[in-house]
Amino acid sequence: MAQDAKGAIERLAQGFAKLPGIGPKTAERLTHYLLGEGRTEALELAQALEAIVERVHACQRCFNLTEGQLCDICSDPRRDSGIICVVEQPRDLAALERVGTYRGVYHVLQGKLAPLDNVGPEQLTLNALMQRVSEGNVKEVILATNPTLEGDGTALYVSNMLAGARVRITRLARGLPSGAVLEFANAQMLADALEGRKAF
Amino acid sequence: MAQDAKGAIERLAQGFAKLPGIGPKTAERLTHYLLGEGRTEALELAQALEAIVERVHACQRCFNLTEGQLCDICSDPRRDSGIICVVEQPRDLAALERVGTYRGVYHVLQGKLAPLDNVGPEQLTLNALMQRVSEGNVKEVILATNPTLEGDGTALYVSNMLAGARVRITRLARGLPSGAVLEFANAQMLADALEGRKAF
Repeated sequence: MAQDAKGAIERLAQGFAKLPGIGPKTAERLTHYLLGEGRTEALELAQALEAIVERVHACQRCFNLTEGQLCDICSDPRRDSGIICVVEQPRDLAALERVGTYRGVYHVLQGKLAPLDNVGPEQLTLNALMQRVSEGNVKEVILATNPTLEGDGTALYVSNMLAGARVRITRLARGLPSGAVLEFANAQMLADALEGRKAF
Repeated sequence: MAQDAKGAIERLAQGFAKLPGIGPKTAERLTHYLLGEGRTEALELAQALEAIVERVHACQRCFNLTEGQLCDICSDPRRDSGIICVVEQPRDLAALERVGTYRGVYHVLQGKLAPLDNVGPEQLTLNALMQRVSEGNVKEVILATNPTLEGDGTALYVSNMLAGARVRITRLARGLPSGAVLEFANAQMLADALEGRKAF
């Protein structure tokens, strides 16, 4: 009885299907692609996956992802370490960096407060943030958590925690997204836009 | 200057973005997932990818994918080796196997005739098919190429090639797909359905 290929092939398809947004159909299509034309890509992908698991970890200062001790932002002397932008996840940091206009540094909380999921303050990198702020030199902390219930709750917690420190606390502007149509904006967007209105 | 994580992370995102149906946005989301909650999955996926590259190859008889010399279908004594179903790719074989009713064996052509892409008869496993058929014992060859221009062309070529052999040549039925609505069926589907009509 010959040994069966299903073992390896099914394991790969199942591996893909575990990823967010990839269903069993897509997983199978990807697997067959990598078995056929994509053999080189399969090996490249395997090596890239191993590389991130082995080499990428949290920056010792801001918890951004890095292969060294400090991330490229913390170790860049041109960034203003007096302004700390607090985000939930490295992907939020990546989104802000893509804009290209922010010249301060970051602090990654590694999550948000979510009592229902048993994520309390001690699961986040709040002590390290407090430490960075209390060491002086920091002029401003920008709260850039997501504009969701949990993100807002986390921002509120952080601002309370930093209330004693002599530091300016700000949060990202909220309002209508550029390109939106008033007719289809939801009530919260419009309420934010009204509340945050500025002189013309 | 600290070493940057972008190397490894971007390489993974680019690796994902090369896969069919995965755009740069999805590639980035997958990468961040595997960097965060999905570290175990990342390693599993890497191992599964390496396993298919190292261990999975074509069955010596039918060119289906296998880890052994013969695939599990060719080495299954309960399968009728007198009926060979000819398909373009292993994924077509997998689709037919999912139905669960076919008890014969297969022959994977490893492609279809496509003169515009420089795929001629010598790129397909046609000699091996001819060999299998000429060794006797084969009663029927089912042409199960895709119902496309190139698939039909390939089927025609195979049937001409086998014309001399004393073997029944059939092809998959063509007609209305179950669940279809006549009103929205295209002309080719209806033409096939009329041409292939059966006694009620």
